[in-house]
Amino acid sequence: MDGHQVRALYDFCGEPGSAELSIIAGEVLTVMRDNVGDGWCEGFNQNGQSGLFPAAYVQVIEATVPTTANTANSQQNTGDYWDDDWDDDSEIGQTQAYVPPVQHQPSMQSAQDLYSDTLSIHTIHSVIPDRSIPSVPKKNNKFSTLVKSGEEGFLLCSKKVMVPESEKMFIEEVEGGRFAWISTGESYNCVVTSPKKESKLKGLKSFIVYQLTPTFNNIQVSRRYKHFDWLHERLEEKFCFIPIPPLPDKQISGRYEEQFIEHRRTQLQEFVDYVCRHPVLSRSRVWQHFITCTDEKRWKAGKRHAEKEELLGVNCFHGVQCTDTPLDAVKVEFQTDGFARFIAGLDPVVKNLMAMATDQAKKHQVLYKREFQKIGQCFGALGIALEADDLGRTRGRLNQALKDTGEAYNEIGKLYEEQPKYDWEPLADKFHIYRGIISNFSDVISIHKTAVLKRRECEKLVNEHKMETQQLRELNQRTDVIARALGAEEMHFQTERDIHVSQTIKNHLVEQISFYQKIVNKLQDALNSFDA
Amino acid sequence: MDGHQVRALYDFCGEPGSAELSIIAGEVLTVMRDNVGDGWCEGFNQNGQSGLFPAAYVQVIEATVPTTANTANSQQNTGDYWDDDWDDDSEIGQTQAYVPPVQHQPSMQSAQDLYSDTLSIHTIHSVIPDRSIPSVPKKNNKFSTLVKSGEEGFLLCSKKVMVPESEKMFIEEVEGGRFAWISTGESYNCVVTSPKKESKLKGLKSFIVYQLTPTFNNIQVSRRYKHFDWLHERLEEKFCFIPIPPLPDKQISGRYEEQFIEHRRTQLQEFVDYVCRHPVLSRSRVWQHFITCTDEKRWKAGKRHAEKEELLGVNCFHGVQCTDTPLDAVKVEFQTDGFARFIAGLDPVVKNLMAMATDQAKKHQVLYKREFQKIGQCFGALGIALEADDLGRTRGRLNQALKDTGEAYNEIGKLYEEQPKYDWEPLADKFHIYRGIISNFSDVISIHKTAVLKRRECEKLVNEHKMETQQLRELNQRTDVIARALGAEEMHFQTERDIHVSQTIKNHLVEQISFYQKIVNKLQDALNSFDA
Repeated sequence: MDGHQVRALYDFCGEPGSAELSIIAGEVLTVMRDNVGDGWCEGFNQNGQSGLFPAAYVQVIEATVPTTANTANSQQNTGDYWDDDWDDDSEIGQTQAYVPPVQHQPSMQSAQDLYSDTLSIHTIHSVIPDRSIPSVPKKNNKFSTLVKSGEEGFLLCSKKVMVPESEKMFIEEVEGGRFAWISTGESYNCVVTSPKKESKLKGLKSFIVYQLTPTFNNIQVSRRYKHFDWLHERLEEKFCFIPIPPLPDKQISGRYEEQFIEHRRTQLQEFVDYVCRHPVLSRSRVWQHFITCTDEKRWKAGKRHAEKEELLGVNCFHGVQCTDTPLDAVKVEFQTDGFARFIAGLDPVVKNLMAMATDQAKKHQVLYKREFQKIGQCFGALGIALEADDLGRTRGRLNQALKDTGEAYNEIGKLYEEQPKYDWEPLADKFHIYRGIISNFSDVISIHKTAVLKRRECEKLVNEHKMETQQLRELNQRTDVIARALGAEEMHFQTERDIHVSQTIKNHLVEQISFYQKIVNKLQDALNSFDA
Repeated sequence: MDGHQVRALYDFCGEPGSAELSIIAGEVLTVMRDNVGDGWCEGFNQNGQSGLFPAAYVQVIEATVPTTANTANSQQNTGDYWDDDWDDDSEIGQTQAYVPPVQHQPSMQSAQDLYSDTLSIHTIHSVIPDRSIPSVPKKNNKFSTLVKSGEEGFLLCSKKVMVPESEKMFIEEVEGGRFAWISTGESYNCVVTSPKKESKLKGLKSFIVYQLTPTFNNIQVSRRYKHFDWLHERLEEKFCFIPIPPLPDKQISGRYEEQFIEHRRTQLQEFVDYVCRHPVLSRSRVWQHFITCTDEKRWKAGKRHAEKEELLGVNCFHGVQCTDTPLDAVKVEFQTDGFARFIAGLDPVVKNLMAMATDQAKKHQVLYKREFQKIGQCFGALGIALEADDLGRTRGRLNQALKDTGEAYNEIGKLYEEQPKYDWEPLADKFHIYRGIISNFSDVISIHKTAVLKRRECEKLVNEHKMETQQLRELNQRTDVIARALGAEEMHFQTERDIHVSQTIKNHLVEQISFYQKIVNKLQDALNSFDA
């Protein structure tokens, strides 16, 4: 029995009629069981209502009974996120890590016993909810605070910011008055392979390490999920005008299961692929450091450097190199509005598609598999039952054919179990990236919107002779830089879907065709055995 | 509101926690709504418990309010079953048939109003149970009464019964010391076609008429379900040693729906096919009368003749012609026991298979169809959502391909809806016949068992000199006739499955292959549209 206290980080709305407990960000909960499976915790709130809630939605605040494990947990959650060992892939509440407290105060112990008895009233032995936990709400991202506050500064800033050559990004105008990033190097890939479990602190901490091998140097580097998480935070901080693809969802339970690890590897590969395909991200210093640095010392130095980065957020626009021909403000705004509507319309569609793909994967693996095995059993049983009449006569063909038919359906059941990893799961994984991109686009668009509003404000000021025309001209130029960057991202997103989304659906269909063809073949074999 | 009273014909066990009401054979129930759908009635029992129960499980006993319709109903149910108009395919409680009573007694009317108010308390507005109604329990068949009592008479009877040539049935010994019916004529088929609705009594009564055309004369006769039912009763009465294939289940509601009628036609065809394939049944006089008589007068005369049939039940054994070589009693008993075990083992297997096939049919039509349409909608919606970014540019290939993909999955959904009538439904229909045969076999076997017991008894009597050896010899010969007839039926059943069961499963597999191949083709079309 745990009985430790946690604080809710986010609101969670439990499904009515289920064993789930709704929690409100900030409230204190008492955890009865840290991990009842699939990332769910069991506990109760201060009103005594008990139920299940996602472990990822709460944070340990204080151990009711001080144990080394609990103390470690609370330190981990208050300490520096990146430098300590807490991360998504270290096991929380691992049994080895638990050292029972030495009992110096018997009176306290009996008090705790009493408390335990009280707690046991609340213990529910519920079935773990069948639905997967909603992903952890997005961290309060940089746009609302850092970016927005800095944007005005950038727009009105008149001083020239010196940008080193390596930080420059180039935009060209392409046909139809559209914009595109100019790729400044050879394109390359980077393979994510061989996830393996490693441990430190004499086995107290264990984690999964993934191998990354870029095609341009073929040198392998080892990275943990927490390193990816660190990288992701850096990219989001730096490139406010680029929707950064999301990492795989954080997950607490089942992290050492082979299937989970392999699936996470696939999702990390999707993330890496997207970055490699992006003309700006793939050239960025922090990314290059991430995929090439093999030396521990240089790695730490590079990390510190990246964390002290100055050309962050809107300041990063200083690095954008493009012509300064003024853009047609009306046309740009019309296009941006259209794009914003497009993204807003795409968002629920992609979410539905992903939910459907995940649902199909699960139905294939569980429901359909079971259905075909039931069919198989029925035919097989008929074959066996008919055999009982043989009485030594050899009229086994029908019986054998029936048993073969049963086996064919049984094998089709296995195909249904195996199949999703070739079609529905990759589909969901590919769209996981695009769902993230789409949801980040609204922030990217809002930077442009803010700039346009600022420009209008300044135009008014100029009309009222409260601002210099020269200052407005500079502001216009900077607004146009923002518009061009957005345009280049729109263009990139279109390329993405013309090539990668298209390829994704095609791959899916190819796998589906092969799947149903395999079913046809199994049934054909069964049919043939009737005439064998 | 109906409020008429019915008597439960059979026990029905309502599902706990559902709106179903358990009823006990013999108890009186008050019907509130005759047909709430899918063959369910709504009403309450004498304890005031209300709920749904199968309409086919009850019989109208008395109308609370005398109406012409209700009076007709009660007459129908007490009158001669075959000669009046009551039958499974005439609509009970048809609205045209209802003539409101002339009110001579206002006091009675107000009493009825009061009653109606009481009734309304019991009215439940429940969802019709999702499960299909269990089929009506078998009529108390002839074996337990007519046959069993007559069997001793047959076994001990010493007088020679004259059997007309046309009633003789021949059994030969075939390889392996087994027995087989000798076919006494050309084999033929009989097609059941064109069910159509007819009516009489100025539209008050309507029913469905099926057309039967035997291949040997190509002359069509019209028969109703009630005629089939009459025939079935005659065959069961006459041929106690032949398991008679069952008719389609009786059903009260939905009898005029096209789909139901077509399905019943298919099931009647299965029944007719089985009879035509059977060497004895296909030559029987009542069957020949049924499939050939076109004249109303001759039809009625033939019916009367059949109903006065004397060579019924065990007496029918007098017509069996075979050698009188004594059989090895031990061997015959061993074989019969083996066959009885085989049949007992086959029974649940065939029931499971049928239940599975029916379940699959429903899942294809509802669940899987919906799943594929959901998939289709997701892809289609993505195509439409992506179109919103076109802004006059013509990059429609991906969008169109996505919409085509959506349409392909949608069409696959329709295939799932259509498919069961080609594979799972025929499978269930074919096995409906065999399930009936299997369940009737136990009665056929028991006739042999009874004969063996009687023989042992008589052997004892002969040992004690209480019976003549000659009488035992005759009894042995008659027991052997029964054994040979059972052997011939075993043989026929084996032929059935070697040919017809085998063909049924093969047809099923052929249809399944074609189904999954169609899916492959739909997906291939979708894939092609990406490169179109």
